[in-house]
Amino acid sequence: MGRNLLLISNSTLHGSGYLDHCESEIKSFLNDKDVESVLFIPYARPSGKTYDEYTGIAKERFQRMGFDLVGIQERVDSDDAVRNAEAIFIGGGNTFVLLDSLYGVDIIPIIKARVRNGMPYIGTSAGANVAGRTIMTTNDMPIIYPPCFDAMGLIPFNINPHYIDSDPNSKHMGETRETRIREYHVFNDNTVVGLREGAMLHVKNNEATLKGSTGARIFRKGKEPTEYRPGESLDFLLTN
Amino acid sequence: MGRNLLLISNSTLHGSGYLDHCESEIKSFLNDKDVESVLFIPYARPSGKTYDEYTGIAKERFQRMGFDLVGIQERVDSDDAVRNAEAIFIGGGNTFVLLDSLYGVDIIPIIKARVRNGMPYIGTSAGANVAGRTIMTTNDMPIIYPPCFDAMGLIPFNINPHYIDSDPNSKHMGETRETRIREYHVFNDNTVVGLREGAMLHVKNNEATLKGSTGARIFRKGKEPTEYRPGESLDFLLTN
Repeated sequence: MGRNLLLISNSTLHGSGYLDHCESEIKSFLNDKDVESVLFIPYARPSGKTYDEYTGIAKERFQRMGFDLVGIQERVDSDDAVRNAEAIFIGGGNTFVLLDSLYGVDIIPIIKARVRNGMPYIGTSAGANVAGRTIMTTNDMPIIYPPCFDAMGLIPFNINPHYIDSDPNSKHMGETRETRIREYHVFNDNTVVGLREGAMLHVKNNEATLKGSTGARIFRKGKEPTEYRPGESLDFLLTN
Repeated sequence: MGRNLLLISNSTLHGSGYLDHCESEIKSFLNDKDVESVLFIPYARPSGKTYDEYTGIAKERFQRMGFDLVGIQERVDSDDAVRNAEAIFIGGGNTFVLLDSLYGVDIIPIIKARVRNGMPYIGTSAGANVAGRTIMTTNDMPIIYPPCFDAMGLIPFNINPHYIDSDPNSKHMGETRETRIREYHVFNDNTVVGLREGAMLHVKNNEATLKGSTGARIFRKGKEPTEYRPGESLDFLLTN
């Protein structure tokens, strides 16, 4: 029994509510393993929300899907919380704040060991970023200096969540997302999966399947980016 | 004779060529001090350009404005190059790559000393970012891990270049720029000047004047952001 991850580009899709667009995927992902209760890690603190505020939102939403949810800050011992979790959900927010806190409480080794042994892992946005090799393809502002940019490496590639195509009509001259990822490859080697809003990736042991509605654009160093459609197998991502 | 900086949001404005929209400001800024030759620092490497490629573009443009320009990599000794420069121009690109290289060649202390003593400094985009206290309000992807996020502190506040207003019609759910800067203030105190594309800031000793065409949005911790128009004095930025 190997890794089992659901990596979601974004928690809220335009025109729908929190986790609505990925509700059916989350339900079948958790029900498949008979999960009843999820451990929530609120460290990414979107809009500076407190852990309890953020956990309240996630708890209400997961209860509506039929699951219990507990914030890691509600447990006395973070290590024990991870060690005993049926499944983990790391929510979005600021990737730098999230990674810094994961190092601060020193739970990355335990999460890695649990995921290796099959504990279901759900990550949205920043929570998908930290499942990758590094956070170097986040879109977030570096508002906290983490001890390094290495992420948890639950998968052997990088995620760029909220991937957005270049708008040919834009008058804004800041770099496009594609330009940023190409610049990343001037200095780094890891493959980058640009997950559009509405897209998600299910990684089960050595199989990866693209889910959701919008597809992904995959960037490999020294090659032209390639488009993938929902339902396609991306197993090749896991072979190195 | 104190500091004298021209901090420019963006080097290319939509619909015009490289440095066209700030040409008259650059010319009067440099001619005011009888500058003939500018030292260019190409470390931000936009699109992964080499130092020489990037310097070639800047050199051609500055020559058309009537100035000589030399890349710092063309000099045997970087320290001496800064020590003897009439003026410095740090171009845009990736702020993390730029800051990491500035630390790598260890020229920040010399730049600070020269700027304190009146050497004109021009920075566009990432080159404006590194003039601030930290690079924590850059928009760039963190493709290199620098030794810290502290920038040169030539001014006692932070810059957010390419500032962009929220688009009420956007269907993209990634954080708006304003949300990102508000999140910055959950964890940090520095005032942030959001310089729209087309805007620039002239800091002369203890006076700061907003130039260009598009204005700035200024974010102070715990306060609502405030709008400033071209021509307005922003001296208050320099009082703490």
